[in-house]
Amino acid sequence: MSEHAIPYKIYLSEDEMPKAWYNLKADMINKPAPLLYPETQQPVTLEQLSQIFCRELAQQELNDTDAYIPIPQEIADFYKMYRPAPLVRAYCLEKKLQTPAKIYYKFEGNNTSGSHKLNSAIAQAYYAKQQGLKGVTTETGAGQWGTALSMACSYFDLDCKVYMVKVSYEQKPFRREVMRTYGASVTPSPSMDTEVGRMILAEHPGTGGSLGCAISEAVEKATTTEGYRYVLGSVLNQVLLHQSVIGLETKAAMDKYGIKPDIIIGCAGGGSNLGGLIAPFMGEKLRGEQDYRFIAVEPASCPTLTRGVYAYDYCDTGRVCPLSKMYTLGSGFMPAANHAGGLRYHGMNSVLSQLYADGLMEARSVVQTEVFEAAEQFARVEGILPAPESSHAIKVAIDEAMKCKETGKEKTILFGLTGTGYFDLYAYEKFHDGKMTDYIPSDEEIAKSVSTLPEIR
Amino acid sequence: MSEHAIPYKIYLSEDEMPKAWYNLKADMINKPAPLLYPETQQPVTLEQLSQIFCRELAQQELNDTDAYIPIPQEIADFYKMYRPAPLVRAYCLEKKLQTPAKIYYKFEGNNTSGSHKLNSAIAQAYYAKQQGLKGVTTETGAGQWGTALSMACSYFDLDCKVYMVKVSYEQKPFRREVMRTYGASVTPSPSMDTEVGRMILAEHPGTGGSLGCAISEAVEKATTTEGYRYVLGSVLNQVLLHQSVIGLETKAAMDKYGIKPDIIIGCAGGGSNLGGLIAPFMGEKLRGEQDYRFIAVEPASCPTLTRGVYAYDYCDTGRVCPLSKMYTLGSGFMPAANHAGGLRYHGMNSVLSQLYADGLMEARSVVQTEVFEAAEQFARVEGILPAPESSHAIKVAIDEAMKCKETGKEKTILFGLTGTGYFDLYAYEKFHDGKMTDYIPSDEEIAKSVSTLPEIR
Repeated sequence: MSEHAIPYKIYLSEDEMPKAWYNLKADMINKPAPLLYPETQQPVTLEQLSQIFCRELAQQELNDTDAYIPIPQEIADFYKMYRPAPLVRAYCLEKKLQTPAKIYYKFEGNNTSGSHKLNSAIAQAYYAKQQGLKGVTTETGAGQWGTALSMACSYFDLDCKVYMVKVSYEQKPFRREVMRTYGASVTPSPSMDTEVGRMILAEHPGTGGSLGCAISEAVEKATTTEGYRYVLGSVLNQVLLHQSVIGLETKAAMDKYGIKPDIIIGCAGGGSNLGGLIAPFMGEKLRGEQDYRFIAVEPASCPTLTRGVYAYDYCDTGRVCPLSKMYTLGSGFMPAANHAGGLRYHGMNSVLSQLYADGLMEARSVVQTEVFEAAEQFARVEGILPAPESSHAIKVAIDEAMKCKETGKEKTILFGLTGTGYFDLYAYEKFHDGKMTDYIPSDEEIAKSVSTLPEIR
Repeated sequence: MSEHAIPYKIYLSEDEMPKAWYNLKADMINKPAPLLYPETQQPVTLEQLSQIFCRELAQQELNDTDAYIPIPQEIADFYKMYRPAPLVRAYCLEKKLQTPAKIYYKFEGNNTSGSHKLNSAIAQAYYAKQQGLKGVTTETGAGQWGTALSMACSYFDLDCKVYMVKVSYEQKPFRREVMRTYGASVTPSPSMDTEVGRMILAEHPGTGGSLGCAISEAVEKATTTEGYRYVLGSVLNQVLLHQSVIGLETKAAMDKYGIKPDIIIGCAGGGSNLGGLIAPFMGEKLRGEQDYRFIAVEPASCPTLTRGVYAYDYCDTGRVCPLSKMYTLGSGFMPAANHAGGLRYHGMNSVLSQLYADGLMEARSVVQTEVFEAAEQFARVEGILPAPESSHAIKVAIDEAMKCKETGKEKTILFGLTGTGYFDLYAYEKFHDGKMTDYIPSDEEIAKSVSTLPEIR
């Protein structure tokens, strides 16, 4: 390799950074079905939603008409601390694979939270501050979201209460320490702090907790404490809106160099990164301006899009949040305990679900050992140790690049590298030691879980 | 904050990146004293040095005439994967401190090794490959250097044998896993792998090892295995040469915006980062073109410059490497076990030692709890969780900024942020739990250690 017309990394300048988020919903002809209020099963009102979320965020959640929402100056300033994120040309990976494909990735890991989650955390903290709140509550499993939120709250001097799944709290002390560095209070869940926590502890004294339980504790704390609201790091449309900064920057960087991706790939758990990355490209597709292939990649152990059903379901195990029409495996679905990364959510953001239902996006599921093989291959040539979540996208990007090698086609592949794996090294250790296994739920297991879906009149 | 003339982060474009390293020695009037061959105590020859190090690196080590050494294209290509490193304007820290000072930092942590060490690792791996070697050996304590070297070796498909201080091997499994991801073999030291390791194990069966012992094992392995050489991550002039890329990029970025630093601050262990950061600025000072204040910051627990002596000493506890004239606490000096970060080396690079002896640079020592206070303050406003090593520089940068607040002077402060603290969270935990203590060696302790210096005829 010597001189390249396209640099290894494309950084936008500060004045090229997006000034507004892009609200993909505004350009959708088939809008996603509305959220339903759990008690009435009627479309949720702004008033109802504002009991759980900050008012401005509730408004963003329901807004499906404004295509652009200006990014407030304070948030734009914070973005400048760790953005623009580089768009990287994977020259070294291409060379290693000997593929004619051109591979690009948008790298969101260059911040202490280690992932794209910070893009929405700072927005949610900002609106909480604007509303005069004292603090916010949330849950965290792997800890990426909790870390991001603690950073954001520290910046705006907001209190941050994180309920961390107990088993993660104990097994991932490092994430916990990062959150403490940023002044967050981190409580292992279930805790004696809430009604629901005490109930669960009484029933299952030795439990290691679950994400569903942690969500229920966080929501209870927010709704029973003066001056607090609950915030969420994925699944919601407000989160997709904030994450559109990923796609907007990517598109601006590509446009600057006249690059058109043929295939756009993102890992998909609740959908925040995928939705953010594809937003402006999907907008062009919806408006008939340009065609792209989109591939959502999910773990075979939690195959929401590829094996779930498209129906109304609860977003949380505690069933206190609004119902959302989405691809789901049932809110009681328990992904295999052996799964190392995130992406364990039973449902999928409603915008992405609608796009998938309309055939505008593909989905693929991949098994975990193959994901870690791809991760290691990538790390060795591109110098970034990827998060297990992000590595799902790497796996499919490599697969597509190898197809190009077979066919000789020079396709341009773009994928989202959502973060780094520095806090996931137990999983890498398992992989190196040959102790990592794959799990694919049976049809019966999924059918059973899906049978618990609520009946919507 | 709204619009700023100077962006938050200054990134050079690829064609603005340095094409050559800068060899500060060439511009020094008082050159550092030559390395001495341990057996003869005569200046070491290229032949002698080439037994331990790659020939090209040995040449760079001895070169004190060429001011610029071109960066080979392969290394420049690798640099493009994670460089240019951003020069960051610490607007948020300035605001928090309410100081009239303008604070900049060069951030070297945006790569998987998490520090600036990669800048020299890739160069050393490249020259080893060029020489047709099979592999290299090294030691690592905290693990930053071992990680960087494993990444570099993986890129050039070289074998990498890392002797990791046993206690770190056990307490820092994550660093070990990163090295394994990059295909390095990581051996806890002392090991049964080498003569010296077996000897130490026979004498002290339960020992947790030491850096000195790991160096001795790595050197023995390199000098007794066909096709291997030993490589080192700091202290040597060749390392300073490669690290000059830090200072060259910083200066180019500052020149682009017409910024002149008044004070330049770096943490100092063996001197690799400090020497690299200050090189081109010190060059201007030596040539009488511009004046700057330089401050080396070292831990109070290992106060090489501030309390050591300037004399010939062994670079390694095993006394197999050449002798160097430097500020030293004695090669047998044992820094307090409670010290959390690196910067525990008993000596200091010979170029920096000479500059300090000539009054061209200041030095300051700081205690560890104050360093972590500064680290946490920085993390909360600047969004980067700094490495304990780098935080020494942060501490003094904040001190200087607070002096500006008192005096009302608008000084421009530049410091080196060498890396991230993602693998140092046990230390942060200790700090949060109030279990971190400070240690300052007594005068007697230092006098005793210094009394073991070799007599040079």
